[in-house]
Amino acid sequence: MSNDRNRILVESIKRLLRRGATSHLTKILNMAHAADLSIVFRSLSRSNQKRLFDLIDGPEKKGHLLMELDEDILLDLVEDMDMDLLMEILEELAEDDAADLLSLLPEEKADLLLKKMKEKGLEDLEDILKYDEETAGRIMVTDFIALKQDMTVKEAIEHIQKEHQDVEMPFYLYVVDEYGRLVGVSSLRQLVLVPPETQLKEIITTDVISVQTHWDQEEVARIVARYDFLAVPVVDESHRLVGIVTVDDVIDILRREATEDILKMAGAGEEFVETKSVFKSTRIRLPWLFASCVGGIIAFFVIGHFEGELTQFAYLAAFIPVIMGMGGNIGTQSSTIVVRGLATGRLHIRDIWRVVFKELAVGLILGVVYGVFIGTVAQVRFSTMALAVSVGLALICSMSVAALIGSFVPMAFARFHIDPAVATGPFVTTSIDIVSVFFYFQIATVLLGI
Amino acid sequence: MSNDRNRILVESIKRLLRRGATSHLTKILNMAHAADLSIVFRSLSRSNQKRLFDLIDGPEKKGHLLMELDEDILLDLVEDMDMDLLMEILEELAEDDAADLLSLLPEEKADLLLKKMKEKGLEDLEDILKYDEETAGRIMVTDFIALKQDMTVKEAIEHIQKEHQDVEMPFYLYVVDEYGRLVGVSSLRQLVLVPPETQLKEIITTDVISVQTHWDQEEVARIVARYDFLAVPVVDESHRLVGIVTVDDVIDILRREATEDILKMAGAGEEFVETKSVFKSTRIRLPWLFASCVGGIIAFFVIGHFEGELTQFAYLAAFIPVIMGMGGNIGTQSSTIVVRGLATGRLHIRDIWRVVFKELAVGLILGVVYGVFIGTVAQVRFSTMALAVSVGLALICSMSVAALIGSFVPMAFARFHIDPAVATGPFVTTSIDIVSVFFYFQIATVLLGI
Repeated sequence: MSNDRNRILVESIKRLLRRGATSHLTKILNMAHAADLSIVFRSLSRSNQKRLFDLIDGPEKKGHLLMELDEDILLDLVEDMDMDLLMEILEELAEDDAADLLSLLPEEKADLLLKKMKEKGLEDLEDILKYDEETAGRIMVTDFIALKQDMTVKEAIEHIQKEHQDVEMPFYLYVVDEYGRLVGVSSLRQLVLVPPETQLKEIITTDVISVQTHWDQEEVARIVARYDFLAVPVVDESHRLVGIVTVDDVIDILRREATEDILKMAGAGEEFVETKSVFKSTRIRLPWLFASCVGGIIAFFVIGHFEGELTQFAYLAAFIPVIMGMGGNIGTQSSTIVVRGLATGRLHIRDIWRVVFKELAVGLILGVVYGVFIGTVAQVRFSTMALAVSVGLALICSMSVAALIGSFVPMAFARFHIDPAVATGPFVTTSIDIVSVFFYFQIATVLLGI
Repeated sequence: MSNDRNRILVESIKRLLRRGATSHLTKILNMAHAADLSIVFRSLSRSNQKRLFDLIDGPEKKGHLLMELDEDILLDLVEDMDMDLLMEILEELAEDDAADLLSLLPEEKADLLLKKMKEKGLEDLEDILKYDEETAGRIMVTDFIALKQDMTVKEAIEHIQKEHQDVEMPFYLYVVDEYGRLVGVSSLRQLVLVPPETQLKEIITTDVISVQTHWDQEEVARIVARYDFLAVPVVDESHRLVGIVTVDDVIDILRREATEDILKMAGAGEEFVETKSVFKSTRIRLPWLFASCVGGIIAFFVIGHFEGELTQFAYLAAFIPVIMGMGGNIGTQSSTIVVRGLATGRLHIRDIWRVVFKELAVGLILGVVYGVFIGTVAQVRFSTMALAVSVGLALICSMSVAALIGSFVPMAFARFHIDPAVATGPFVTTSIDIVSVFFYFQIATVLLGI
């Protein structure tokens, strides 16, 4: 499998490093794929990372490797890199990658580089940097084929051969009007099937799906995924064609977003912590646990409020875990379904009441099922009807409310443009804990006639 | 945004359905993209779905739509479809899609169709069906360009023009030896840059990354994603080229797997439940909650065992939520990081001890931080040193053990080829609940000298 491939590469490189076999190393490094090297770099010391990076030929290959490296390794390498080399690398990178790299650098370094590039007449990069991060404008490349609609097919083919020998994505030929506005799309295959004198506007598909520069990158990714595109055209507010987003960037976005969502919901950061140190990992996870800690302290005061009842009926405490656990779990199910549904575009904010109502119904049914079950267990164990009914009712309330909170909160956050994945985790579980415990003791107090 | 596009389509179609404007409907339906129509179908009644489906022109378009529809809608449409139409549709679909469709049908219907197709000499489909589901062999298409290595460039170009006018992915030209074994790859662009008499074997790239028919589809998807491929070649055990997997299928796999992982970890099924009815949704979520219910009952007996202590020190109960909550949350963080790390290939089973040890360290540090904090709260509230120390120690134990269980369990499941995402959720949270509660009362019993 591909893991073996990587393991062999890692081991060969480590062996050559130990032996100091520089010429061998250079050969292996320059034949290997940047994506594979990035995995090798993870298991090397900083000094060996620098040594290997220096052995890579030319700014283009160096640039490709940089874009594949983990962010902390990249920053380390770039930190004391020669400014001229950095310039050369930036020039070789695709604009979206160059913009990404610049945005990672310390501001003064980035500004200096931008100024230098402007002096050299390289202004594309500045154009891209004016778009917000994570928008279509920021992830597009401007290296695409645009043909005028009144060209003939013959002229179009000549134009492509002359001007676009090395365009990144030659599968779609976009067609624009005299103002540069996107009017249609065609393909090389289509061009060779019609007489050479045909005008482009007669043969193009005019129903082109495009995205706008300010659209969120997730929305762009969803469109490419839904229509099985290899690239999607990006237009500005006047519908002028300004770039394309290609499928390889879309894959990266979809993978990263999915991982981010999962990690954020568990309060484990936004990106992979597994390569990070114990202390970094601890720091990332601390805040989310703090929310749950505050929730626990509030629950503590809620229970403290019922200390009298607890002294009289100590076994009340024994049902706390099951009531908290069931509430928490059904709430997690609801919020996971909603967060993921919003992320994949299968749920919309406008459906909020339908979704919340449905989750409430599910919570109620499951609450009745498990309420009767646990209530029966309580009855068998203690033969106290009032206790059994209290526990059962508490479960029904706790599970219904948990499903309600679990579905409503992420929807409401999304409505106010707060990322539901990051906010939902601590907020939902903490509030469900408190509400469950409160319901339970309140119901027990009334029914047990304490 | 694209949502507006869909909303307009849904509304137009519903209006035309009400008006019975069949000719208008036919026009709109046949111009719309199958991916958009699939969204329209979700909000229609079964009878209207059938009506619209009948209006779609020809088996090719019908087939494309079927592949985009949700599974339950698809099955409904196919159920009483004419066998001849179904045959025509199967013939028009790409093999991987046809295989998918067949595997969804009732067995006798599928067998009958396969027999019929064999009679017509269409055996490709049977070839594909012999591979296991979710492997490279099952998701590949056999429609690719393979050239013999001793062809000249001129012969290759002629061959492509004659034989491969409508191949799905003409960007990679795969080169094979006399036995059909994959030896290299080239591209149209490369062919036009060298003299026409050059032999292919002189110019091809021989270091081709390929996958084998039995590889898991997730592994295939990771390779396409890592190397930014538009397609990857699939070879059999003798390294013969038998198919390619294209990037659009890879996107679908990556999206589905990510969603599945998230939903499975929360015990909310494997696929989208949001389009399902309340009762279906309830049934899917019931079993996972049962695991947590059993855990709650065990915790109940554990606490019941300490009833004497609880009667003496009722306020012990007040710390149950915070200890369970903190343990549960840090355990969820650990298992999420591990499950996602395994899924994206950034963690390997062979790293199990390193990962578990690191998580244990994180759990210990966070346990000490929050143990001291909550212990101080307990001290301030009750001024009982023994209680404060009990609570603090219990938190340290509970959080360390939770991080240990949370990281070890998914790794161990993966080791024995049990899907870590589906097994981790209930197992981890339930065992952490029980262990936390037990530690707490055991420590309190000793320290409070009850």
